[in-house]
Amino acid sequence: MTRIIVCAPSTPLKREDADRVLELAALHFPAVQIAFHEQCFAVDGHFAGPDAMRRDALIESANDPAFDAVWFARGGYGANRIAERVVAGLDDAARNKVFLGYSDGGYLLAALYRAGIGRPVHGPMAVDVRRERGENAIGRALSFLSGDMSGLEPSVNGQPAVAFNLMTLAMLCGTPLMPNLDGHVVMVEEVSEYLYAVDRLLFHVTAHLQGIAGLRLGRVSDVPENDRPFGADVEEIVRYWCGRNDIPFLGGADIGHDPANKIVPFGLARALT
Amino acid sequence: MTRIIVCAPSTPLKREDADRVLELAALHFPAVQIAFHEQCFAVDGHFAGPDAMRRDALIESANDPAFDAVWFARGGYGANRIAERVVAGLDDAARNKVFLGYSDGGYLLAALYRAGIGRPVHGPMAVDVRRERGENAIGRALSFLSGDMSGLEPSVNGQPAVAFNLMTLAMLCGTPLMPNLDGHVVMVEEVSEYLYAVDRLLFHVTAHLQGIAGLRLGRVSDVPENDRPFGADVEEIVRYWCGRNDIPFLGGADIGHDPANKIVPFGLARALT
Repeated sequence: MTRIIVCAPSTPLKREDADRVLELAALHFPAVQIAFHEQCFAVDGHFAGPDAMRRDALIESANDPAFDAVWFARGGYGANRIAERVVAGLDDAARNKVFLGYSDGGYLLAALYRAGIGRPVHGPMAVDVRRERGENAIGRALSFLSGDMSGLEPSVNGQPAVAFNLMTLAMLCGTPLMPNLDGHVVMVEEVSEYLYAVDRLLFHVTAHLQGIAGLRLGRVSDVPENDRPFGADVEEIVRYWCGRNDIPFLGGADIGHDPANKIVPFGLARALT
Repeated sequence: MTRIIVCAPSTPLKREDADRVLELAALHFPAVQIAFHEQCFAVDGHFAGPDAMRRDALIESANDPAFDAVWFARGGYGANRIAERVVAGLDDAARNKVFLGYSDGGYLLAALYRAGIGRPVHGPMAVDVRRERGENAIGRALSFLSGDMSGLEPSVNGQPAVAFNLMTLAMLCGTPLMPNLDGHVVMVEEVSEYLYAVDRLLFHVTAHLQGIAGLRLGRVSDVPENDRPFGADVEEIVRYWCGRNDIPFLGGADIGHDPANKIVPFGLARALT
């Protein structure tokens, strides 16, 4: 039995989405037990409850020995506001737990990885059930949490790796949440940013990432149309900034804000069971 | 006679805007002579010509003893791509020159300030002539370049100061363009960003700015409407992040993406003549 607790460190989940995840789990993963923390449905302005509520729900979930994994409900924005305090509140029960999410959840994955607590993993979140073919994303997450490694991003090998939303990684750089990524393969993906903004983010990120093993480019989707073409595509942009900063460009990564988003355990990948 | 050369380190200017600036100068500033570098009107995808053209035009203008000031035509995006190489190419003629601009021009102001070259100044650009009451902005810039200090941001006093677009400052942090801002009053302004993005940028920036004298908040304009209210206004957001990072919040600043945008000489303000 794999026991999963879902909390929402960023923005709230809809109950119908939680219900749909429970349905899928009951149908396809009889050995998985999922509990949605009531905090997932709290609303406080932009956030799934005030900072203190989100922080406490996550600490309580991570420190509860009744669960094997903490699954982030959804991104959006807000995990950076609580990440440092969450890490400070974790105890031994959190140390062997998996923490699964992506996008805004990257702030927590980074802070946990920096602190050496638990097993931070980039992968689908509960809210992905809303996407077309979202059941594939949910299935991939639950399979992984059940010990199946077939959903790993295909380039994951014997090198330590991490995966981030590009904006999240840019905002992490130089903050107390940022782990040392020397020698790591760093995968990035982005959604809903202009190409000039992607260029700007890569200027920033590559200045901070000297010493990594290399950069891999995931999907950059839903790029808004600008009043004129940028003049270079995303891969050209990444190659340009990698070249300027002596960072090896390693090719593509099968991650993104979509149902095909693959799983990237932070550090060295190893089976959960 | 004050001799000004305009170049475009980011995006291109329209000839009609240059003509309108020349008209205003001829009418109100007979002792000012303005030359628009032909590069201002070049177009290469997003940019006012390729990186090499923008870089060379700026180096040529800054190193030309026939001019007292280099005025940036327009922001948009792109100065970060050339700033480091521009600074490396400057000679003695550039050292006493004023460099005036804001927004994306902040990458150059920062790099020049870090290198101790010339007098970087936050203030209106030629493109501001397009705004309603844009003639006020142009007049303020040309008055300042003529030696009139009345357009200074009113809080500017005996303390060293800088002013930045918040996104520009966030992208600068930790890069080879970033000056040491210990003991400085740092003014920030923003345009067209969601409040959650402003919160995210302040998380990043305040983590990098410990040691400054304090933060001042300029105008945050054209905030897009989100699908729900953020739950705090801009000043509350700034106070929150200043509080978390022990940075004094010093109040407002009369800067922004608008025709009232005041002038902030980097470092200690002193008259030009």
